[in-house]
Amino acid sequence: MSPIAIGIHGGCGTPDRALLPEHDWTQTRAHLADALRSAWDVLAGGGSALDAVESAVAVLEDSPHFNAGHGAALTEAGDHELDASIMDGATTEAGAICAVRRIRNPIRAARAVMERSDCLLIAGDAADRFARQAGLAIVDNGYFTTERRRQALASLKARARRGTIAAASEAERHGTVGAVALDSRGNLAAGTSTGGFNNKPPGRVGDTPIIGAGTYARNGVCAVSCTGQGEIFIRHAVAHDVWARMRYAGETLKQATDAQVFDVLSAYKIGAGLVAVDAAGRVVAPFNTLGMARGWIGPDGAMHVATHKEVERVSVLERA
Amino acid sequence: MSPIAIGIHGGCGTPDRALLPEHDWTQTRAHLADALRSAWDVLAGGGSALDAVESAVAVLEDSPHFNAGHGAALTEAGDHELDASIMDGATTEAGAICAVRRIRNPIRAARAVMERSDCLLIAGDAADRFARQAGLAIVDNGYFTTERRRQALASLKARARRGTIAAASEAERHGTVGAVALDSRGNLAAGTSTGGFNNKPPGRVGDTPIIGAGTYARNGVCAVSCTGQGEIFIRHAVAHDVWARMRYAGETLKQATDAQVFDVLSAYKIGAGLVAVDAAGRVVAPFNTLGMARGWIGPDGAMHVATHKEVERVSVLERA
Repeated sequence: MSPIAIGIHGGCGTPDRALLPEHDWTQTRAHLADALRSAWDVLAGGGSALDAVESAVAVLEDSPHFNAGHGAALTEAGDHELDASIMDGATTEAGAICAVRRIRNPIRAARAVMERSDCLLIAGDAADRFARQAGLAIVDNGYFTTERRRQALASLKARARRGTIAAASEAERHGTVGAVALDSRGNLAAGTSTGGFNNKPPGRVGDTPIIGAGTYARNGVCAVSCTGQGEIFIRHAVAHDVWARMRYAGETLKQATDAQVFDVLSAYKIGAGLVAVDAAGRVVAPFNTLGMARGWIGPDGAMHVATHKEVERVSVLERA
Repeated sequence: MSPIAIGIHGGCGTPDRALLPEHDWTQTRAHLADALRSAWDVLAGGGSALDAVESAVAVLEDSPHFNAGHGAALTEAGDHELDASIMDGATTEAGAICAVRRIRNPIRAARAVMERSDCLLIAGDAADRFARQAGLAIVDNGYFTTERRRQALASLKARARRGTIAAASEAERHGTVGAVALDSRGNLAAGTSTGGFNNKPPGRVGDTPIIGAGTYARNGVCAVSCTGQGEIFIRHAVAHDVWARMRYAGETLKQATDAQVFDVLSAYKIGAGLVAVDAAGRVVAPFNTLGMARGWIGPDGAMHVATHKEVERVSVLERA
């Protein structure tokens, strides 16, 4: 029986502690723990890495504290366009949707594309229609809006009018959620979901729904979910590159992910982070920003959650 | 001064010779030669690999003999949705559009996204609007339709009604065009454009607009443009994988591309092909189907075009 492990992130755009009331941080950590527990329940019960990833990402999508699902960023036009992808490392099968407006849990739509269509990626209104036909929960676009994102958009538009858009911090703009898992049969999986960034142009698609860029998983090597300025992640096929460094160059998970985040991506002066797990259940979560909401439970069952540099060891869970 | 080279493909879904009148094959070869000449003129005059790729792909888009631009495949709904991407190996900058309906030359829109927006990938109607604002040629969706594609769609729908869809040949379904180039400053570039496949579901996006899957270019290593069943190409990040095998495993261009086409992709029993060039100007064009329209001019100036196994040496061009 393989060791089991789960790793999650809530985006590398975590703002300075002082910018939000303590209550928000407490809730953020609680929702990270909820996502970890839901995935651990799947894995500890002998369930699949794919189910664990879908479950964890859906919990983060439902939380208003992360930029995905409810709480997603607002476009220039003041509405929401969501992207997500999921990959099964056992089969290399994958599914993704981009620029959707009506699907409550985009990660579930990505999985439905993988399992119930001949496509891998479906774009726009057609993906919303596909999800409805697949019986997934459909919501009005306004369901995704929170007061915090509305304020962030207003603030960004005001800065744009004043010509100080460059001063907008990463925290006000980007955000993503994602999960990686290793199950008791040794199968790896990864999934990622996002609202993009605040004030993004309509139709813009980042790395989140791009298999190889924002998400990648292959049994025996690694599963990876990314967060950061998506355009650069696509240009470097970051998630696949982590796999390729391990597979072709013999690097460890830590070497491969540190090289991507701290050498390749940091050279562009962009915010960058990821969570990844290898075939032994080792979880890494490097980031080059002030904070990245994240958490993991390794093969020892110890749950850790964090929003900034400091990591909190929450509890130790049993493997049933 | 670097050697210069151009390689192009018109998709690995080339039908049996007997299925089309000889006049069509003559025209197909003539249009391949036109695309090669247009790119060579750029390169021989000291122009950029990026300009050469854009020029060659635009010629193939304008030809009715290839599944891109005029002559693109029809969706289930009987209209057209086009995808394209381009990448500059000198900077790793890239641009792409997917599921567009009104842009006469999608490859020019991909380049405009790269150079005139903060995005890398724009989807759907928003991409059509972007192209219009960028001053690119806009056409009615019907401009892309040819009688041959209309017949192919009718034939596929008839087969679907009879339940014999699996018998449809690759030739009736897939198709893509692409180009790779090396310029006199040693810069590499790649670009790809497609109508997808006949009878595709609305919103379906394949590997063509996915940087890392259908298109990839990095100076000093290689430029790659792919053709085949896109879903599998995305799962293996084929174009980036060729780069990674050369960069991390020390494989030659021929080793890396043969491994992808004949080992990895052929194992799925799908049609697969690509054209690629390395930093020395060596061009390869492997495919596992009956035919792949293709052509190249290497550093020696000799132009070759082909549609099936046999390669025709057309002429030798001067480097100005």
